[in-house]
Amino acid sequence: MQQKDISIAVIKRLPRYYRYLGDLLEHGVTRISSNDLARRMNLTASQIRQDLNKFGCFGQQGYGYNVELLYEEIKSILGLQRTYNLVIIGGGNLGQTLANYSNFQKRGFKFTAIFDKNPRLIGHNVRGLEIIDVSGLDAYLKNNPVDIAVLALPKANVAEVLPILVQNNISGIWNFSHVDLKTPDSITVENVHLTDSLLTLSYRLSQREKGEL
Amino acid sequence: MQQKDISIAVIKRLPRYYRYLGDLLEHGVTRISSNDLARRMNLTASQIRQDLNKFGCFGQQGYGYNVELLYEEIKSILGLQRTYNLVIIGGGNLGQTLANYSNFQKRGFKFTAIFDKNPRLIGHNVRGLEIIDVSGLDAYLKNNPVDIAVLALPKANVAEVLPILVQNNISGIWNFSHVDLKTPDSITVENVHLTDSLLTLSYRLSQREKGEL
Repeated sequence: MQQKDISIAVIKRLPRYYRYLGDLLEHGVTRISSNDLARRMNLTASQIRQDLNKFGCFGQQGYGYNVELLYEEIKSILGLQRTYNLVIIGGGNLGQTLANYSNFQKRGFKFTAIFDKNPRLIGHNVRGLEIIDVSGLDAYLKNNPVDIAVLALPKANVAEVLPILVQNNISGIWNFSHVDLKTPDSITVENVHLTDSLLTLSYRLSQREKGEL
Repeated sequence: MQQKDISIAVIKRLPRYYRYLGDLLEHGVTRISSNDLARRMNLTASQIRQDLNKFGCFGQQGYGYNVELLYEEIKSILGLQRTYNLVIIGGGNLGQTLANYSNFQKRGFKFTAIFDKNPRLIGHNVRGLEIIDVSGLDAYLKNNPVDIAVLALPKANVAEVLPILVQNNISGIWNFSHVDLKTPDSITVENVHLTDSLLTLSYRLSQREKGEL
Protein backbone atom coordinates (compact mmCIF):
# COMPACT_ATOMS: atom_id res chain seq x y z
CA MET A 1 0.00 0.00 0.00
CA GLN A 2 1.27 3.46 -0.90
CA GLN A 3 1.25 6.24 1.62
CA LYS A 4 2.86 9.53 0.80
CA ASP A 5 2.33 13.22 1.18
CA ILE A 6 -0.35 12.63 3.79
CA SER A 7 -1.30 15.92 5.41
CA ILE A 8 -1.73 16.31 9.15
CA ALA A 9 -5.42 17.07 8.55
CA VAL A 10 -5.97 13.71 6.87
CA ILE A 11 -4.04 11.87 9.58
CA LYS A 12 -6.15 13.58 12.21
CA ARG A 13 -9.28 12.28 10.50
CA LEU A 14 -8.12 8.65 10.48
CA PRO A 15 -9.06 7.91 14.10
CA ARG A 16 -12.50 9.30 13.31
CA TYR A 17 -12.88 6.99 10.32
CA TYR A 18 -11.78 4.14 12.54
CA ARG A 19 -14.35 5.07 15.17
CA TYR A 20 -17.23 5.34 12.70
CA LEU A 21 -16.31 2.11 10.92
CA GLY A 22 -16.06 0.31 14.28
CA ASP A 23 -19.55 1.55 15.17
CA LEU A 24 -20.90 0.37 11.81
CA LEU A 25 -19.35 -3.08 12.31
CA GLU A 26 -20.88 -3.32 15.76
CA HIS A 27 -24.25 -2.59 14.19
CA GLY A 28 -23.76 -5.30 11.60
CA VAL A 29 -23.29 -2.97 8.61
CA THR A 30 -21.09 -4.74 6.06
CA ARG A 31 -20.82 -2.19 3.26
CA ILE A 32 -21.28 1.54 2.93
CA SER A 33 -21.21 4.13 0.16
CA SER A 34 -19.04 7.22 0.41
CA ASN A 35 -22.27 9.25 0.35
CA ASP A 36 -23.70 7.45 3.36
CA LEU A 37 -20.42 7.58 5.29
CA ALA A 38 -20.12 11.27 4.40
CA ARG A 39 -23.58 12.00 5.78
CA ARG A 40 -22.81 10.24 9.05
CA MET A 41 -19.41 11.88 9.47
CA ASN A 42 -20.50 15.32 8.35
CA LEU A 43 -17.94 15.36 5.53
CA THR A 44 -18.41 15.42 1.76
CA ALA A 45 -18.34 12.18 -0.23
CA SER A 46 -15.54 13.50 -2.41
CA GLN A 47 -13.45 14.33 0.66
CA ILE A 48 -13.91 10.77 1.92
CA ARG A 49 -12.91 9.30 -1.45
CA GLN A 50 -9.88 11.57 -1.58
CA ASP A 51 -8.80 10.73 1.98
CA LEU A 52 -9.13 7.01 1.56
CA ASN A 53 -7.57 6.93 -1.92
CA LYS A 54 -4.46 8.40 -0.33
CA PHE A 55 -4.17 5.27 1.75
CA GLY A 56 -4.82 2.96 -1.15
CA CYS A 57 -8.38 2.20 -0.05
CA PHE A 58 -10.67 2.24 -3.08
CA GLY A 59 -14.40 1.75 -2.91
CA GLN A 60 -16.08 -0.18 -5.71
CA GLN A 61 -18.44 1.59 -8.07
CA GLY A 62 -22.01 0.61 -7.22
CA TYR A 63 -20.93 -1.28 -4.12
CA GLY A 64 -19.15 1.23 -1.95
CA TYR A 65 -16.68 0.22 0.71
CA ASN A 66 -16.47 -3.14 2.44
CA VAL A 67 -16.72 -1.95 6.05
CA GLU A 68 -14.66 -4.72 7.61
CA LEU A 69 -11.83 -4.52 5.06
CA LEU A 70 -11.69 -0.76 5.37
CA TYR A 71 -11.75 -1.01 9.16
CA GLU A 72 -8.88 -3.51 9.17
CA GLU A 73 -6.92 -1.41 6.69
CA ILE A 74 -7.24 1.74 8.79
CA LYS A 75 -6.48 -0.26 11.91
CA SER A 76 -3.23 -1.32 10.32
CA ILE A 77 -2.41 2.22 9.11
CA LEU A 78 -2.97 3.48 12.65
CA GLY A 79 -0.43 0.97 13.91
CA LEU A 80 -3.01 -1.04 15.84
CA GLN A 81 -2.04 -4.47 14.54
CA ARG A 82 0.25 -4.66 17.58
CA THR A 83 -0.06 -3.74 21.27
CA TYR A 84 1.73 -0.96 23.12
CA ASN A 85 3.04 -0.90 26.68
CA LEU A 86 2.51 2.39 28.50
CA VAL A 87 3.62 3.76 31.83
CA ILE A 88 1.84 6.68 33.46
CA ILE A 89 4.00 9.22 35.22
CA GLY A 90 1.89 11.10 37.72
CA GLY A 91 -0.55 9.09 39.83
CA GLY A 92 -2.88 11.96 40.74
CA ASN A 93 -6.40 12.53 39.47
CA LEU A 94 -5.52 12.63 35.79
CA GLY A 95 -3.14 9.66 35.87
CA GLN A 96 -5.71 7.57 37.67
CA THR A 97 -8.44 8.65 35.26
CA LEU A 98 -6.35 7.55 32.27
CA ALA A 99 -5.50 4.22 33.95
CA ASN A 100 -9.22 3.64 34.41
CA TYR A 101 -10.12 4.18 30.73
CA SER A 102 -11.06 0.75 29.44
CA ASN A 103 -11.25 2.10 25.87
CA PHE A 104 -7.48 2.33 25.59
CA GLN A 105 -6.96 -1.27 26.72
CA LYS A 106 -9.53 -2.43 24.16
CA ARG A 107 -7.51 -0.86 21.35
CA GLY A 108 -4.24 -2.47 22.42
CA PHE A 109 -2.78 0.13 24.76
CA LYS A 110 -1.74 -1.59 27.98
CA PHE A 111 -0.78 0.35 31.07
CA THR A 112 1.94 -1.55 32.91
CA ALA A 113 2.89 0.81 35.75
CA ILE A 114 2.10 4.18 37.37
CA PHE A 115 4.78 6.33 38.98
CA ASP A 116 4.55 9.17 41.46
CA LYS A 117 6.73 10.80 44.08
CA ASN A 118 3.98 11.54 46.57
CA PRO A 119 4.34 9.13 49.55
CA ARG A 120 0.58 9.32 50.09
CA LEU A 121 -0.04 7.86 46.62
CA ILE A 122 2.80 5.31 46.44
CA GLY A 123 1.53 1.81 47.12
CA HIS A 124 -2.07 2.68 46.16
CA ASN A 125 -3.72 0.43 43.66
CA VAL A 126 -5.41 1.65 40.46
CA ARG A 127 -7.04 -1.00 38.23
CA GLY A 128 -4.61 -3.61 39.51
CA LEU A 129 -1.61 -1.32 39.03
CA GLU A 130 0.37 -0.29 42.07
CA ILE A 131 1.62 3.30 42.14
CA ILE A 132 5.43 3.02 42.28
CA ASP A 133 7.95 5.53 43.65
CA VAL A 134 9.25 7.52 40.67
CA SER A 135 12.80 6.92 41.91
CA GLY A 136 12.34 3.44 40.46
CA LEU A 137 11.44 4.71 36.95
CA ASP A 138 14.92 4.36 35.48
CA ALA A 139 15.32 0.76 36.67
CA TYR A 140 11.80 -0.07 35.45
CA LEU A 141 12.49 1.24 31.95
CA LYS A 142 15.76 -0.71 31.81
CA ASN A 143 14.03 -3.97 32.75
CA ASN A 144 10.67 -3.75 30.98
CA PRO A 145 9.61 -3.06 27.41
CA VAL A 146 7.83 0.32 27.42
CA ASP A 147 6.71 2.06 24.24
CA ILE A 148 4.95 5.15 25.51
CA ALA A 149 5.28 7.30 28.62
CA VAL A 150 2.19 9.26 29.60
CA LEU A 151 3.09 12.53 31.33
CA ALA A 152 0.29 13.35 33.75
CA LEU A 153 2.25 15.39 36.25
CA PRO A 154 2.54 19.11 37.03
CA LYS A 155 4.77 20.94 34.59
CA ALA A 156 7.19 21.88 37.38
CA ASN A 157 8.05 18.18 37.80
CA VAL A 158 8.57 17.34 34.14
CA ALA A 159 12.25 18.35 34.15
CA GLU A 160 12.99 15.61 36.70
CA VAL A 161 11.63 12.75 34.63
CA LEU A 162 12.22 13.81 31.02
CA PRO A 163 16.00 13.03 31.04
CA ILE A 164 15.24 9.52 32.33
CA LEU A 165 12.84 8.92 29.43
CA VAL A 166 15.36 10.26 26.93
CA GLN A 167 18.23 8.17 28.33
CA ASN A 168 16.11 5.06 28.06
CA ASN A 169 15.15 5.76 24.44
CA ILE A 170 11.43 5.84 24.99
CA SER A 171 9.67 5.84 21.59
CA GLY A 172 6.64 7.97 22.38
CA ILE A 173 5.42 10.49 24.92
CA TRP A 174 1.74 11.30 25.40
CA ASN A 175 2.06 14.66 27.10
CA PHE A 176 -0.72 16.05 29.29
CA SER A 177 1.64 18.34 31.21
CA HIS A 178 1.10 21.95 30.31
CA VAL A 179 4.55 22.49 28.83
CA ASP A 180 6.14 22.01 25.40
CA LEU A 181 8.80 19.31 25.69
CA LYS A 182 12.28 19.69 24.28
CA THR A 183 13.11 16.18 23.16
CA PRO A 184 15.42 14.58 20.60
CA ASP A 185 13.90 13.80 17.19
CA SER A 186 13.90 10.09 18.02
CA ILE A 187 10.99 10.63 20.43
CA THR A 188 7.48 11.13 19.04
CA VAL A 189 5.46 13.51 21.19
CA GLU A 190 1.68 13.89 21.13
CA ASN A 191 0.37 16.75 23.26
CA VAL A 192 -2.99 17.06 24.98
CA HIS A 193 -3.01 20.55 26.44
CA LEU A 194 -6.42 20.81 28.09
CA THR A 195 -6.08 24.48 28.99
CA ASP A 196 -5.20 25.34 25.37
CA SER A 197 -8.34 23.54 24.25
CA LEU A 198 -10.48 25.44 26.75
CA LEU A 199 -8.95 28.76 25.63
CA THR A 200 -9.74 27.88 22.01
CA LEU A 201 -13.34 27.45 23.11
CA SER A 202 -13.43 30.79 24.95
CA TYR A 203 -11.87 32.44 21.89
CA ARG A 204 -14.61 31.09 19.66
CA LEU A 205 -17.36 32.03 22.13
CA SER A 206 -15.97 35.51 22.42
CA GLN A 207 -15.68 35.98 18.63
CA ARG A 208 -19.26 34.86 18.36
CA GLU A 209 -20.45 37.37 20.92
CA LYS A 210 -18.60 40.17 19.15
CA GLY A 211 -20.24 39.16 15.89
CA GLU A 212 -23.65 39.27 17.48
CA LEU A 213 -23.24 42.66 19.14
CA MET B 1 -8.23 46.13 16.58
CA GLN B 2 -8.66 44.36 13.27
CA GLN B 3 -9.09 40.61 13.15
CA LYS B 4 -9.94 38.93 9.90
CA ASP B 5 -9.14 35.83 7.92
CA ILE B 6 -7.51 34.23 10.92
CA SER B 7 -6.72 30.61 10.14
CA ILE B 8 -7.42 27.79 12.57
CA ALA B 9 -3.66 27.16 12.82
CA VAL B 10 -3.04 30.70 14.09
CA ILE B 11 -5.94 30.48 16.52
CA LYS B 12 -4.57 27.21 17.85
CA ARG B 13 -1.25 28.94 18.53
CA LEU B 14 -2.81 31.77 20.55
CA PRO B 15 -3.15 29.80 23.81
CA ARG B 16 0.52 28.86 23.43
CA TYR B 17 1.52 32.52 23.05
CA TYR B 18 -0.57 33.29 26.09
CA ARG B 19 1.14 30.54 28.09
CA TYR B 20 4.67 31.62 27.15
CA LEU B 21 3.94 35.30 27.78
CA GLY B 22 2.44 34.44 31.16
CA ASP B 23 5.60 32.50 32.07
CA LEU B 24 7.76 35.45 30.98
CA LEU B 25 5.71 37.85 33.09
CA GLU B 26 6.04 35.56 36.10
CA HIS B 27 9.81 35.66 35.61
CA GLY B 28 9.82 39.45 35.49
CA VAL B 29 10.59 39.75 31.78
CA THR B 30 9.10 43.03 30.52
CA ARG B 31 10.06 43.00 26.84
CA ILE B 32 11.06 40.41 24.29
CA SER B 33 12.21 40.35 20.67
CA SER B 34 10.47 38.17 18.11
CA ASN B 35 13.78 36.29 17.76
CA ASP B 36 13.95 35.46 21.44
CA LEU B 37 10.28 34.50 21.64
CA ALA B 38 10.73 32.37 18.49
CA ARG B 39 13.64 30.49 20.03
CA ARG B 40 11.67 29.72 23.18
CA MET B 41 8.54 28.66 21.29
CA ASN B 42 10.36 26.73 18.61
CA LEU B 43 8.84 28.89 15.85
CA THR B 44 10.48 31.28 13.43
CA ALA B 45 10.64 35.00 14.19
CA SER B 46 8.85 35.81 10.94
CA GLN B 47 6.03 33.42 11.82
CA ILE B 48 5.60 35.16 15.15
CA ARG B 49 5.56 38.59 13.55
CA GLN B 50 3.02 37.37 10.99
CA ASP B 51 0.78 35.77 13.62
CA LEU B 52 0.78 38.78 15.91
CA ASN B 53 0.41 41.32 13.10
CA LYS B 54 -2.84 39.58 12.21
CA PHE B 55 -4.18 40.55 15.60
CA GLY B 56 -2.94 44.11 15.35
CA CYS B 57 -0.03 43.50 17.76
CA PHE B 58 3.08 45.18 16.38
CA GLY B 59 6.48 44.99 18.01
CA GLN B 60 8.69 48.07 17.88
CA GLN B 61 11.87 48.01 15.86
CA GLY B 62 14.85 47.73 18.23
CA TYR B 63 12.60 47.22 21.25
CA GLY B 64 10.56 44.13 20.50
CA TYR B 65 7.27 43.43 22.20
CA ASN B 66 6.11 44.79 25.52
CA VAL B 67 5.35 41.50 27.27
CA GLU B 68 2.58 42.77 29.51
CA LEU B 69 0.75 44.66 26.75
CA LEU B 70 0.98 41.68 24.43
CA TYR B 71 -0.19 39.35 27.19
CA GLU B 72 -3.20 41.54 27.92
CA GLU B 73 -4.00 41.86 24.23
CA ILE B 74 -3.97 38.10 23.69
CA LYS B 75 -5.92 37.60 26.89
CA SER B 76 -8.61 39.84 25.47
CA ILE B 77 -8.55 38.13 22.06
CA LEU B 78 -8.97 34.77 23.81
CA GLY B 79 -12.08 36.12 25.53
CA LEU B 80 -10.50 36.01 28.99
CA GLN B 81 -11.44 39.53 30.04
CA ARG B 82 -14.57 37.93 31.52
CA THR B 83 -15.32 34.78 33.51
CA TYR B 84 -17.27 31.72 32.37
CA ASN B 85 -19.60 29.48 34.35
CA LEU B 86 -19.27 25.80 33.58
CA VAL B 87 -21.19 22.71 34.59
CA ILE B 88 -19.66 19.26 34.35
CA ILE B 89 -21.93 16.47 33.18
CA GLY B 90 -20.49 13.17 34.32
CA GLY B 91 -19.12 12.96 37.86
CA GLY B 92 -16.84 9.95 37.31
CA ASN B 93 -13.05 9.94 37.21
CA LEU B 94 -12.73 12.40 34.34
CA GLY B 95 -15.36 14.84 35.60
CA GLN B 96 -13.78 14.88 39.04
CA THR B 97 -10.32 15.34 37.53
CA LEU B 98 -11.48 18.38 35.56
CA ALA B 99 -13.22 19.85 38.62
CA ASN B 100 -9.92 19.52 40.49
CA TYR B 101 -7.85 21.45 37.92
CA SER B 102 -6.99 24.72 39.61
CA ASN B 103 -5.51 26.04 36.34
CA PHE B 104 -8.94 26.54 34.81
CA GLN B 105 -10.24 28.51 37.77
CA LYS B 106 -7.17 30.76 37.62
CA ARG B 107 -7.99 31.68 34.02
CA GLY B 108 -11.59 32.57 34.78
CA PHE B 109 -13.41 29.28 34.20
CA LYS B 110 -15.60 28.55 37.18
CA PHE B 111 -17.24 25.19 37.71
CA THR B 112 -20.59 25.73 39.37
CA ALA B 113 -22.09 22.21 39.43
CA ILE B 114 -21.46 18.56 38.58
CA PHE B 115 -24.21 16.23 37.40
CA ASP B 116 -24.42 12.45 37.29
CA LYS B 117 -27.10 9.80 37.30
CA ASN B 118 -25.21 7.25 39.39
CA PRO B 119 -26.78 7.12 42.88
CA ARG B 120 -23.40 6.15 44.33
CA LEU B 121 -21.90 9.45 43.13
CA ILE B 122 -24.83 11.80 43.80
CA GLY B 123 -24.27 13.79 46.97
CA HIS B 124 -20.47 13.35 46.87
CA ASN B 125 -18.41 16.46 47.19
CA VAL B 126 -15.66 17.47 44.72
CA ARG B 127 -13.75 20.69 45.46
CA GLY B 128 -16.74 22.07 47.29
CA LEU B 129 -19.16 21.08 44.51
CA GLU B 130 -21.85 18.56 45.28
CA ILE B 131 -22.61 16.01 42.56
CA ILE B 132 -26.27 16.58 41.64
CA ASP B 133 -28.76 14.14 40.11
CA VAL B 134 -28.80 14.79 36.35
CA SER B 135 -32.60 14.85 36.47
CA GLY B 136 -32.13 18.34 37.93
CA LEU B 137 -30.04 19.60 34.98
CA ASP B 138 -32.89 21.26 33.11
CA ALA B 139 -34.07 23.19 36.17
CA TYR B 140 -30.50 24.16 37.01
CA LEU B 141 -29.88 25.59 33.54
CA LYS B 142 -33.16 27.54 33.70
CA ASN B 143 -32.23 29.12 37.03
CA ASN B 144 -28.48 29.69 36.74
CA PRO B 145 -26.26 31.44 34.20
CA VAL B 146 -24.19 28.70 32.54
CA ASP B 147 -21.91 29.38 29.57
CA ILE B 148 -20.27 26.02 28.95
CA ALA B 149 -21.30 22.41 29.56
CA VAL B 150 -18.45 19.94 29.91
CA LEU B 151 -19.44 16.49 28.64
CA ALA B 152 -17.46 13.94 30.64
CA LEU B 153 -19.84 11.02 30.37
CA PRO B 154 -19.90 7.78 28.36
CA LYS B 155 -21.00 8.31 24.78
CA ALA B 156 -24.05 6.08 25.29
CA ASN B 157 -25.45 8.64 27.75
CA VAL B 158 -24.88 11.75 25.65
CA ALA B 159 -28.21 11.45 23.81
CA GLU B 160 -30.06 11.87 27.12
CA VAL B 161 -28.48 15.20 28.04
CA LEU B 162 -27.78 16.87 24.70
CA PRO B 163 -31.42 17.90 24.03
CA ILE B 164 -31.55 19.55 27.46
CA LEU B 165 -28.46 21.60 26.64
CA VAL B 166 -29.88 22.57 23.25
CA GLN B 167 -33.28 23.55 24.68
CA ASN B 168 -31.60 25.78 27.22
CA ASN B 169 -29.46 27.53 24.59
CA ILE B 170 -26.11 26.66 26.09
CA SER B 171 -23.37 28.68 24.34
CA GLY B 172 -20.51 26.21 24.42
CA ILE B 173 -19.86 22.52 24.88
CA TRP B 174 -16.45 21.15 25.84
CA ASN B 175 -16.87 17.59 24.70
CA PHE B 176 -14.78 14.75 26.15
CA SER B 177 -17.32 12.09 25.18
CA HIS B 178 -16.07 9.95 22.36
CA VAL B 179 -18.79 10.95 19.92
CA ASP B 180 -19.26 13.77 17.40
CA LEU B 181 -22.17 15.90 18.52
CA LYS B 182 -24.96 16.97 16.22
CA THR B 183 -25.82 20.42 17.51
CA PRO B 184 -27.39 23.57 16.08
CA ASP B 185 -24.98 26.22 14.76
CA SER B 186 -25.69 28.41 17.75
CA ILE B 187 -23.66 26.07 19.97
CA THR B 188 -19.86 26.18 19.80
CA VAL B 189 -18.35 22.74 20.35
CA GLU B 190 -14.73 22.04 21.24
CA ASN B 191 -13.81 18.36 21.23
CA VAL B 192 -11.16 16.58 23.25
CA HIS B 193 -11.15 13.02 21.94
CA LEU B 194 -8.45 11.32 23.99
CA THR B 195 -8.60 8.05 22.06
CA ASP B 196 -8.17 9.91 18.76
CA SER B 197 -5.09 11.59 20.18
CA LEU B 198 -3.64 8.26 21.31
CA LEU B 199 -4.29 6.74 17.86
CA THR B 200 -2.52 9.68 16.23
CA LEU B 201 0.46 8.81 18.40
CA SER B 202 0.37 5.13 17.48
CA TYR B 203 0.07 6.10 13.80
CA ARG B 204 3.19 8.24 14.06
CA LEU B 205 5.12 5.57 15.98
CA SER B 206 4.14 2.98 13.43
CA GLN B 207 5.14 5.16 10.46
CA ARG B 208 8.46 5.74 12.15
CA GLU B 209 9.08 2.04 12.61
CA LYS B 210 8.23 1.37 8.98
CA GLY B 211 10.68 4.06 7.95
CA GLU B 212 13.40 2.50 10.06
CA LEU B 213 12.94 -1.07 8.87
